[in-house]
Amino acid sequence: MANSKYEYVKSFELSDALLPHTWIVIRIDGKGFTRFSQVHGFKKPNDERALRLMNECARAVLEDLPDVCFGYGVSDEYSFVLKKTSTVYQRRASKLVSIVVSLFAATYVMKWDQYFPDMKIQYAPSFDGRAVCYPSDPILRDYLSWRQVDCHINNQYNTCYWSLVQSGNSPVEAQDLIKGTLADFKNELLHSRFGINYNELPPIFRKGSLIFRRKEETVVKVEEDGVPVKRLKSQVVVTHEDLIKDAFWNENPSILGTAGSKKSQS
Amino acid sequence: MANSKYEYVKSFELSDALLPHTWIVIRIDGKGFTRFSQVHGFKKPNDERALRLMNECARAVLEDLPDVCFGYGVSDEYSFVLKKTSTVYQRRASKLVSIVVSLFAATYVMKWDQYFPDMKIQYAPSFDGRAVCYPSDPILRDYLSWRQVDCHINNQYNTCYWSLVQSGNSPVEAQDLIKGTLADFKNELLHSRFGINYNELPPIFRKGSLIFRRKEETVVKVEEDGVPVKRLKSQVVVTHEDLIKDAFWNENPSILGTAGSKKSQS
Amino acid sequence: MANSKYEYVKSFELSDALLPHTWIVIRIDGKGFTRFSQVHGFKKPNDERALRLMNECARAVLEDLPDVCFGYGVSDEYSFVLKKTSTVYQRRASKLVSIVVSLFAATYVMKWDQYFPDMKIQYAPSFDGRAVCYPSDPILRDYLSWRQVDCHINNQYNTCYWSLVQSGNSPVEAQDLIKGTLADFKNELLHSRFGINYNELPPIFRKGSLIFRRKEETVVKVEEDGVPVKRLKSQVVVTHEDLIKDAFWNENPSILGTAGSKKSQS
Amino acid sequence: MANSKYEYVKSFELSDALLPHTWIVIRIDGKGFTRFSQVHGFKKPNDERALRLMNECARAVLEDLPDVCFGYGVSDEYSFVLKKTSTVYQRRASKLVSIVVSLFAATYVMKWDQYFPDMKIQYAPSFDGRAVCYPSDPILRDYLSWRQVDCHINNQYNTCYWSLVQSGNSPVEAQDLIKGTLADFKNELLHSRFGINYNELPPIFRKGSLIFRRKEETVVKVEEDGVPVKRLKSQVVVTHEDLIKDAFWNENPSILGTAGSKKSQS
Repeated sequence: MANSKYEYVKSFELSDALLPHTWIVIRIDGKGFTRFSQVHGFKKPNDERALRLMNECARAVLEDLPDVCFGYGVSDEYSFVLKKTSTVYQRRASKLVSIVVSLFAATYVMKWDQYFPDMKIQYAPSFDGRAVCYPSDPILRDYLSWRQVDCHINNQYNTCYWSLVQSGNSPVEAQDLIKGTLADFKNELLHSRFGINYNELPPIFRKGSLIFRRKEETVVKVEEDGVPVKRLKSQVVVTHEDLIKDAFWNENPSILGTAGSKKSQS
Repeated sequence: MANSKYEYVKSFELSDALLPHTWIVIRIDGKGFTRFSQVHGFKKPNDERALRLMNECARAVLEDLPDVCFGYGVSDEYSFVLKKTSTVYQRRASKLVSIVVSLFAATYVMKWDQYFPDMKIQYAPSFDGRAVCYPSDPILRDYLSWRQVDCHINNQYNTCYWSLVQSGNSPVEAQDLIKGTLADFKNELLHSRFGINYNELPPIFRKGSLIFRRKEETVVKVEEDGVPVKRLKSQVVVTHEDLIKDAFWNENPSILGTAGSKKSQS
Repeated sequence: MANSKYEYVKSFELSDALLPHTWIVIRIDGKGFTRFSQVHGFKKPNDERALRLMNECARAVLEDLPDVCFGYGVSDEYSFVLKKTSTVYQRRASKLVSIVVSLFAATYVMKWDQYFPDMKIQYAPSFDGRAVCYPSDPILRDYLSWRQVDCHINNQYNTCYWSLVQSGNSPVEAQDLIKGTLADFKNELLHSRFGINYNELPPIFRKGSLIFRRKEETVVKVEEDGVPVKRLKSQVVVTHEDLIKDAFWNENPSILGTAGSKKSQS
Repeated sequence: MANSKYEYVKSFELSDALLPHTWIVIRIDGKGFTRFSQVHGFKKPNDERALRLMNECARAVLEDLPDVCFGYGVSDEYSFVLKKTSTVYQRRASKLVSIVVSLFAATYVMKWDQYFPDMKIQYAPSFDGRAVCYPSDPILRDYLSWRQVDCHINNQYNTCYWSLVQSGNSPVEAQDLIKGTLADFKNELLHSRFGINYNELPPIFRKGSLIFRRKEETVVKVEEDGVPVKRLKSQVVVTHEDLIKDAFWNENPSILGTAGSKKSQS
């Protein structure tokens, strides 16, 4: 029995290839994570275990897809950057988004017990995803800066809010006190009322998480005389540092690439 | 600190809304499942536990997304049909595909132990996904028929192939014996050599799995005198039957809808 | 000299194929025709010469593209319907739109002198265009009804407005008198003040223009004895009738097709 | 009478906005110009009148759309470059393509008599068009180089072919003599057999046509004492020069822009 009679239905699949030679960012976002975090008793304003679990899932993505050269995570959101020159899966948006998001979600459940050993995961989480093209390095950096500024704004707000609520204010009171206030006011509030120096909070909360490959000196074997043999090996690392200023990118030139070819100069 | 300086990057997100008033099919497909099935010792040609696990994941999708009115699964693949009139997530392709595929993959890991109690899952699976629009009921049915015919063709081939290999033939010999042969030849081979009556194999292997909502009579309470009170309730059910002929659709008219409005007549 | 070094730039052309088996409507619209109509002294509220010139251009489109089965024109706008099953130019949106719109615009200049023999065309007009898919016959008819209702609403408004202005009211006065009023009020105004019976205005103004192919009895030759030999031949005709009710479509079943195949029943 | 009942059909218009901050190239191409050139007796291998008419149409495009910063024409084809930063018509592909192509086609008919005073235009020409995004300056230049190399290859071939045919060879003989031969062979053939020095042929044939704005010293008035007052004014100019090497772009830095902002450095 041939299947040819029905095969015409394949023609309804339209191309969703993304523009070549642009940075592809795949951003995924936990669906309904306000409830998910309540059900699982996430600490407020930040739960370090949940953030480290997100980073573990991101690591799985970088290990599965060599063309993902960078990731940035904050809260229940992660952005993955595919190399400008990547042609993986013919740059088809649905393919890329679905593989990243399903691997991320499956890993989230797989690794849950390591980060929440005291609590069973109650139900399967899901994530939405999208793919966006950025045509140049500066615009890609502006995208990432946008996310890191957002991390900062939200974290500062949430730190104030939850400090107020946890010290006895009602949610409405807490909101009224801080909404529309400037950064300085919030920092002063945290300091004067709660003894919190905002800038000394853990960087993972204030800066989010950067994930990328870095050549690190690694012990590859130990000689008979006990001398370790080290070699530079590419490792996936997670850091919590500023990515808005040039410093990070200058120290890690291989992420965006410094190819000398005419095409990548632009 | 305002985020407005960087917010222009949002303008790079282009719309991927799907054409209104068409059936949306989201098809997902296990990535690298040949290896996944080997690592986890799936039975050949079909592993019923793995198929039932897929169905369990599909159930999670139908329970999470009321606009998904039908699903069809075969092997490591599942197709989900969204109602023509659905406007969920503004019909954005990436949103729809990512939510379905991540929920499916996360559920796969969540429910693994129920179906494979003797074996730990070794690594997180991933799935690719795509969204395709079908403009009319007959074309949607042709799409589903295409998948069920494919199920049949593949299952018949695989049943022959693995019978031969499990009875001592080499993979190459097995291939040479059956490639290019007609259905009748394969049925005869199965019967004469292995005593297998193809049409008596479990329907889940031959027909794949249909998942949909059906009004079923359900006991909602028991009266004091012991008389059970039943009511018609909509249940998600899984069946393994023919969907190519009209019978199934006639018996389940609510799946595709029989709305009498002018717009849905077409 | 080979051109291969630069040919990679072709890969940046992304597909814009439209969904198969849907009606494609290409709607074009005069760009800046308020000014164009002033410069060329078009009569207000309607200039029959200009409308007939538009119809002439539409005729050129139907003669050039056999898959265009219907057109509807109003003011400086025209909608062309491509058959559901058409695969012309692989249903690529840009191709279809550009060929229709350029032929239309070029014909507009070519035929100008026939419709405006007393006035030279002052500058080249341009038109914008778009392609939209409609998945079913009723929705396509709703699209066309939308345009014809628009024709009616605009024509009624404009007839009142210009009657008032031409009888001495200022534009602002005219607007104030009619804006927000109902159809009955406008009809009454036209009748009582200007002796105009709206329903007796030329159908080309009230109904717009329908263009399509119709089998007409045509004299193909004259016998020696003077008897004309007639045959049914397909002719492109322009009419000005109601397309909202069923009558027109029942009388012209071949436009949308009455194919009995399973696929077109939907 | 409200039109709201049918207005839902507008929701079927899907967005076709092009990626921001990329060069948009709109390339248009004469449809069926082999026949058009025969019917109108175009000289072979090149008809300078037809090429100059194309350039006149391109001029109309640049004058109508200030965001078109460059055009390149060869044979019956023209490419128009929109500035990276342009947001005209919200960068909608169909809008841009349709306006350019319809203005071009209408101008072609309008200006025909100036370039072909001895012959009436026989029928309306049409053009197909497409819009393609190029994410960086070097890739845009590669695109334009691709077209100019194509111009050269085709012109060299056609010059040989028509010289042979016009000197008595049959089309088949001419083809057989030159197909697959290298540039040097063709140049030698032209020189030895027809006394043609390829590099001395008119640049408009060998290089195609570049159209862009250039600040030119223009006489804006003449003083009473007869001294002309000149000022730098931006003029649309047409040249026929090399655009593959850097020289042209260095001499005309304003075309691609030398903006010093972070965003345009990439």
